Amino acid sequence: MKSEIKYRVPYADTDQMGVVYYANYLEYFERLRNELLREAGTPYSQIEKMGFILPVIEAYCKYIAPAKYDDLISISGWIDEAKGARLTIKCEIRNEKNSLLVEGWTVHACVSAASKKPIRIPVFLSPDSVKASPSAQTQVIPP
Amino acid sequence: MKSEIKYRVPYADTDQMGVVYYANYLEYFERLRNELLREAGTPYSQIEKMGFILPVIEAYCKYIAPAKYDDLISISGWIDEAKGARLTIKCEIRNEKNSLLVEGWTVHACVSAASKKPIRIPVFLSPDSVKASPSAQTQVIPP
Amino acid sequence: MKSEIKYRVPYADTDQMGVVYYANYLEYFERLRNELLREAGTPYSQIEKMGFILPVIEAYCKYIAPAKYDDLISISGWIDEAKGARLTIKCEIRNEKNSLLVEGWTVHACVSAASKKPIRIPVFLSPDSVKASPSAQTQVIPP
Amino acid sequence: MKSEIKYRVPYADTDQMGVVYYANYLEYFERLRNELLREAGTPYSQIEKMGFILPVIEAYCKYIAPAKYDDLISISGWIDEAKGARLTIKCEIRNEKNSLLVEGWTVHACVSAASKKPIRIPVFLSPDSVKASPSAQTQVIPP
Repeated sequence: MKSEIKYRVPYADTDQMGVVYYANYLEYFERLRNELLREAGTPYSQIEKMGFILPVIEAYCKYIAPAKYDDLISISGWIDEAKGARLTIKCEIRNEKNSLLVEGWTVHACVSAASKKPIRIPVFLSPDSVKASPSAQTQVIPP
Repeated sequence: MKSEIKYRVPYADTDQMGVVYYANYLEYFERLRNELLREAGTPYSQIEKMGFILPVIEAYCKYIAPAKYDDLISISGWIDEAKGARLTIKCEIRNEKNSLLVEGWTVHACVSAASKKPIRIPVFLSPDSVKASPSAQTQVIPP
Repeated sequence: MKSEIKYRVPYADTDQMGVVYYANYLEYFERLRNELLREAGTPYSQIEKMGFILPVIEAYCKYIAPAKYDDLISISGWIDEAKGARLTIKCEIRNEKNSLLVEGWTVHACVSAASKKPIRIPVFLSPDSVKASPSAQTQVIPP
Repeated sequence: MKSEIKYRVPYADTDQMGVVYYANYLEYFERLRNELLREAGTPYSQIEKMGFILPVIEAYCKYIAPAKYDDLISISGWIDEAKGARLTIKCEIRNEKNSLLVEGWTVHACVSAASKKPIRIPVFLSPDSVKASPSAQTQVIPP
């Protein structure tokens, strides 16, 4: 399952080189994750209410070409791996001509909010269950 | 003419009080202005190409109630006044129940990019012409 | 009592107009408030531990001239008024030549973290007590 | 040569998990790079004036423990490699107890601002010359 959102780049996100500042792409990745989890049936706000948190423990970005002010970019991503207490989500950012601008990934620990200890990724977050999730199926955007 | 956009609040915008950090509402105002100018027929990127810039010279926010993570807020606004070389844009932010969270305004100078001197607001930006703009009419969201 | 901090403008704070993005000055105001309260003897983190919060209920900025990348700006401010449950803090941002770039203010409600109800500003935050605070006196930066 | 700056974490940088939002560490890395280049004798603003830009082409962060509001963190870093048209800068973020919170790196292309083509890293940016730079020697912070 691959999710996708559209995002209009504001002036706020640019820097004086005339392009999106490099840290902001990590915010774009987060916007995608929010939608990905919602489409998979469990918004992150609900995951937190269930007593889990998914802090980022690693992040990587490769900057291929810049996004610019007022671009309507596409941010897409998918759960690449979910094993033990770790979840890897891959993301891609493309412009309106579908050229790849940025790609990267984040690794998340699945942690109990109460004990702060890592716990096994809940079934509803594993790539297989995501593929099979009925609510997800209706919103699948083909890769 | 009133424009409106929907915006999903990411974790990035929150602070440890569990609400949207107060400076971020000014970014929300900018997102609205981008859409407002586009709907009025002249996206800001085009205004810049025409040799004008519209720097903010004053900004005001009144914080009534907080927006929170994952809220799908509405950001709306309109050109309140355009006289001489000054433009005032008013903005409102509401939650899904239509409660007013934040209201405020920005004042912009209309400046020649070349000479850096103030110049009279172009006709296409005055409230009257905006009301009459055909491209705007098709997208008007009633107040 | 007037507090002052120095701040080096990073690329992150600029936008494609080649100047600091307008919302970021509100972050600068916050950096100053943190120092102001620390110098007055009660860091904000301690205020929160005492059960108070000071959410911003109004903010205003006047943009006179822009700060730029790598500028070493001065951010200064003082408690202008503290009465009932409201606190007003004024701020000024100047460049290395001491030219005024931005001035503005924030109004804060003093709220009980437990009851969420407004409460009278604690004595240690009133302008008079701030002037008289011994820890503040040692760090006073003359206006 | 290793450079180091101190940074007081504002509310602005936190999120509702009560810790610094993960993208902000990339801004911290940039603050360090600015200082590193200044200490090495050529502030980035001067590099740009000389006709070079150093856009980030890759970034990586490992999040070990969170920085929190009002922490006075140390951001340190050094040029790890400079060969051909590529420069790698490593960074570490530590708290006041010197515990490692975040480590990571950025890779930069050295590009001609005029031709947008990659060019060999200037001598003044190679790790060896940095070590030997007189202005750097006076400011070296031992690892």
